[in-house]
Amino acid sequence: MFITFEGPEGSGKTSVIHRLYETLLNLGYDVILTREPGGTPIAEEIRNVILDKKNVDLDPRAEALLYAASRRQHLVEKVWPALKEGKIVICDRFLDSSLAYQGGARNLGIDNVLNVNLFATEGFYPDLTILLDIDPKLGLERIARNKNREVNRLDLEKLDFHNLVRKTFLDLSKKYADRYYIVDASKDLNTVSEEVNRIVIERLDLKK
Amino acid sequence: MFITFEGPEGSGKTSVIHRLYETLLNLGYDVILTREPGGTPIAEEIRNVILDKKNVDLDPRAEALLYAASRRQHLVEKVWPALKEGKIVICDRFLDSSLAYQGGARNLGIDNVLNVNLFATEGFYPDLTILLDIDPKLGLERIARNKNREVNRLDLEKLDFHNLVRKTFLDLSKKYADRYYIVDASKDLNTVSEEVNRIVIERLDLKK
Repeated sequence: MFITFEGPEGSGKTSVIHRLYETLLNLGYDVILTREPGGTPIAEEIRNVILDKKNVDLDPRAEALLYAASRRQHLVEKVWPALKEGKIVICDRFLDSSLAYQGGARNLGIDNVLNVNLFATEGFYPDLTILLDIDPKLGLERIARNKNREVNRLDLEKLDFHNLVRKTFLDLSKKYADRYYIVDASKDLNTVSEEVNRIVIERLDLKK
Repeated sequence: MFITFEGPEGSGKTSVIHRLYETLLNLGYDVILTREPGGTPIAEEIRNVILDKKNVDLDPRAEALLYAASRRQHLVEKVWPALKEGKIVICDRFLDSSLAYQGGARNLGIDNVLNVNLFATEGFYPDLTILLDIDPKLGLERIARNKNREVNRLDLEKLDFHNLVRKTFLDLSKKYADRYYIVDASKDLNTVSEEVNRIVIERLDLKK
């Protein structure tokens, strides 16, 4: 079973994923937790090109292609072998982040970015995608509060961008209704985490 | 005017291109000679990932995506700005090499590789693509002879691969008949070079 987590900044994604991972391990499931580039050396190298602060001139379409290349390598070297061994694979962000951030918010077109990614994934999709949905204003405030700093002008300027990301995730949840599960991430971490753990364990029981 | 050169190994492409470049310069044309990644730092970084000898596990689809990313960056940073300034751009290999080597010979499918590249190029094609066509057996023998070594087992093993590359280039020359010009590269360098120079200058005159 391949489970992906998606959501805007400040949705508490990282904490929720780690709690799920611990819970599944304690229940005796054979589970791995990963995120692109997932420690595969080639995917790391590709990621370094994307994140290199020197590369301010990186074109958005080149960036989308690099993410797809890194995704491919991570799938081939890590995700698919683990699934083949019968493991549960939990992945922090996947395909839908490219669709939301680059297809939606960066305006390259969801279908265009999907198209490139389908070449990378050969039509492989997650069994379950959990969207930790939160109003980006609240998410950014949460990040700001956690870091003991006020929301600054840059955060506010970015709000339109993050609103577009959220809107695209919600659009995707309708397009891919069969694999999407939306959790209201504005609630407190314990409540969110319990709902996530419950739904994943339900799906795993159904698969038995 | 954007002119690309394609052809299998041993077709004499590099020599022919340099002679064309010198000829056009001497005739007073504003011309640049480039090849991917074309000295653009980001495209170079991407190319390093592709060519890194450590990366033996690089998946063919990831490789195709990396070539497309490098192509995009080279177009955005170098080719399109030069064309905008009214320059003639001569490029040693372009889109069609990806189609022939990865789509055809590596068997990823020409339409699949084209699809990914159209995302990178936004439907931009060369005005003229000169295919230096040669039987790969002859091409490889020519390389071997030049280096004063005999054709070895490795060269012979690769022959099927190179035959597929050639076949795909010839298929592409039919698909894109309007921009393709095929030169018989089995002839001697002077003859090939003169034919190439003549056809390019004819096309440039037509454009005036």
